[in-house]
Amino acid sequence: MAEATQDQTPTYVEKGKAFDRDMNYIPDRITKDGRTPEHGPTDVQLWPVEPGRYRLVAAKACPWANRSIIVRNLLGLEDVISLGMPGPTHDRRSWTFDLDPGGRDPVLGIERLQEAYFKRFPDYPRGITVPAIVEESTGQVVTNDFPWITHDLFHEWRDFHKEGAPDLWPAHLREEMDAVNKRVFTEVNNGVYRCGFAGSQEAYDAAYDRLFTALDWLEERLADRRYLMGDALTEADVRLFTTLARFDAVYHGHFKCNRNKLTEMPVLWGYARDLYQTPGFGETIDFDRIKAHYYVVHTDINPSGIIPKGPEPEVWLQPHGRG
Amino acid sequence: MAEATQDQTPTYVEKGKAFDRDMNYIPDRITKDGRTPEHGPTDVQLWPVEPGRYRLVAAKACPWANRSIIVRNLLGLEDVISLGMPGPTHDRRSWTFDLDPGGRDPVLGIERLQEAYFKRFPDYPRGITVPAIVEESTGQVVTNDFPWITHDLFHEWRDFHKEGAPDLWPAHLREEMDAVNKRVFTEVNNGVYRCGFAGSQEAYDAAYDRLFTALDWLEERLADRRYLMGDALTEADVRLFTTLARFDAVYHGHFKCNRNKLTEMPVLWGYARDLYQTPGFGETIDFDRIKAHYYVVHTDINPSGIIPKGPEPEVWLQPHGRG
Repeated sequence: MAEATQDQTPTYVEKGKAFDRDMNYIPDRITKDGRTPEHGPTDVQLWPVEPGRYRLVAAKACPWANRSIIVRNLLGLEDVISLGMPGPTHDRRSWTFDLDPGGRDPVLGIERLQEAYFKRFPDYPRGITVPAIVEESTGQVVTNDFPWITHDLFHEWRDFHKEGAPDLWPAHLREEMDAVNKRVFTEVNNGVYRCGFAGSQEAYDAAYDRLFTALDWLEERLADRRYLMGDALTEADVRLFTTLARFDAVYHGHFKCNRNKLTEMPVLWGYARDLYQTPGFGETIDFDRIKAHYYVVHTDINPSGIIPKGPEPEVWLQPHGRG
Repeated sequence: MAEATQDQTPTYVEKGKAFDRDMNYIPDRITKDGRTPEHGPTDVQLWPVEPGRYRLVAAKACPWANRSIIVRNLLGLEDVISLGMPGPTHDRRSWTFDLDPGGRDPVLGIERLQEAYFKRFPDYPRGITVPAIVEESTGQVVTNDFPWITHDLFHEWRDFHKEGAPDLWPAHLREEMDAVNKRVFTEVNNGVYRCGFAGSQEAYDAAYDRLFTALDWLEERLADRRYLMGDALTEADVRLFTTLARFDAVYHGHFKCNRNKLTEMPVLWGYARDLYQTPGFGETIDFDRIKAHYYVVHTDINPSGIIPKGPEPEVWLQPHGRG
């Protein structure tokens, strides 16, 4: 859900203010046969699950988009939902398909993701975010509501999951998992942004304390559990992973989350490497794109646009000792 | 030698350019009986060594000033040369005595170090830097030529050194030490600034490679030597130390020297703690002032002015295992 703002100059830091994420998205759902969803928003337009009909547009740079790429991989939906990939940086108007031949998405035929938003809502007023699901035939955005995008991938597309796909939202764990997800979202996933986009020292200090309190809690929680919810991988791990993968490369320096590096928290670091080395995870991580995104797009935090060379990514392949 | 520039807006990063430090200082020397110096610049005004006559003005925040504070401590010159301490931040015109009662240096009676420069040269055109030595009676700057300030402290003020003061420039090591100092200066002391103030990706990349090549060389050199020049402390250690002390707190994030933290280089990290725990060193390090200086003064690198909370400084007190 990293967004390209509509303003003249991107401004992520608002002087004197704490960072407040705009959580208003296009809330449509894609459900089995277009049924009313059992969970989450229901008073929305419903679209039916249908192989070959939709395209997931997700930049590898963006942690929120990264989730959807990993979930699609884990469930084996690669042949059912196609994937479009904008480049790591974007201008004030939109993510762009600058990595594709001719600078156009080969399926949608557009240069800017904005075009798919405007096809749906000509006056779309909010940020052009990824992940977004686009209907291939009409070129219209269906939804960019990131937590429900992955939810529906594992809950509504079950008929198309590969054999042996993990159950990313096991029924008996849902209550606990919702609580874990909530804390991870506010304190960690969004917590790093609250550090980096803080508009005052006070807002930053508070965000930093909350972030590291939560990381200490996770360090303890994962000491006797291989995964966040126990012995098996769930979406809670996917959500935490995309933040951890960016921690030392970006959040530690660029967002001033610098009590310590991830590599200095032995349990979390082993856990993160375990996931990285799990099929479906590591191949979605492109540290060059990740660094380019943050260091180039946030001109008010890094006016020079210079991208740090470090840290060296090979450490992610070291034995993780988990299991 | 951190400087307050004379410009309207401090600009440390020049677009498209590599950082080039202005090495022009007021080159006067203070020598025993005002004799012609044996080493270094001689075609300068000479001032005689005289207890109680001079005041060293040195901000704890600044690594170049920090050297002179440490050398003064090591040699026991505290009662011979007084010490004035500007606060960690400065405006575009000057370092200021904002930590002193009434915002004035209690001996010189001035609010801004600039006043001492202007007393000497009313049109002084360059940066107002620390360290500077000021004649107390006239309030005029004598010199701000930082490498020769410390040199003269150990070479010209010998009659006033405390008993057992280290020989910071041993005769039999001078040739090798000059070579080590030169490499440490260009690649490390100034190398971190060349990373942080690079005006292009190319200039940054080159500076980063040079910096870490030199740190790898130091890691190797110090593996079988307690100090840079062997068994005994010299000024070479002082020079390296003031950069290492700032590495994880500032240079790693703010200057993008992020291949690794100092704490990730076991030899250099043990060496740095050894020095930190040596009387004369650690008590000169004030991490809060250090961070405030860099993160507040360099508005073009950190426009928000927000100062990171991390890393936690207690690690500097861990056993160093050297010796």
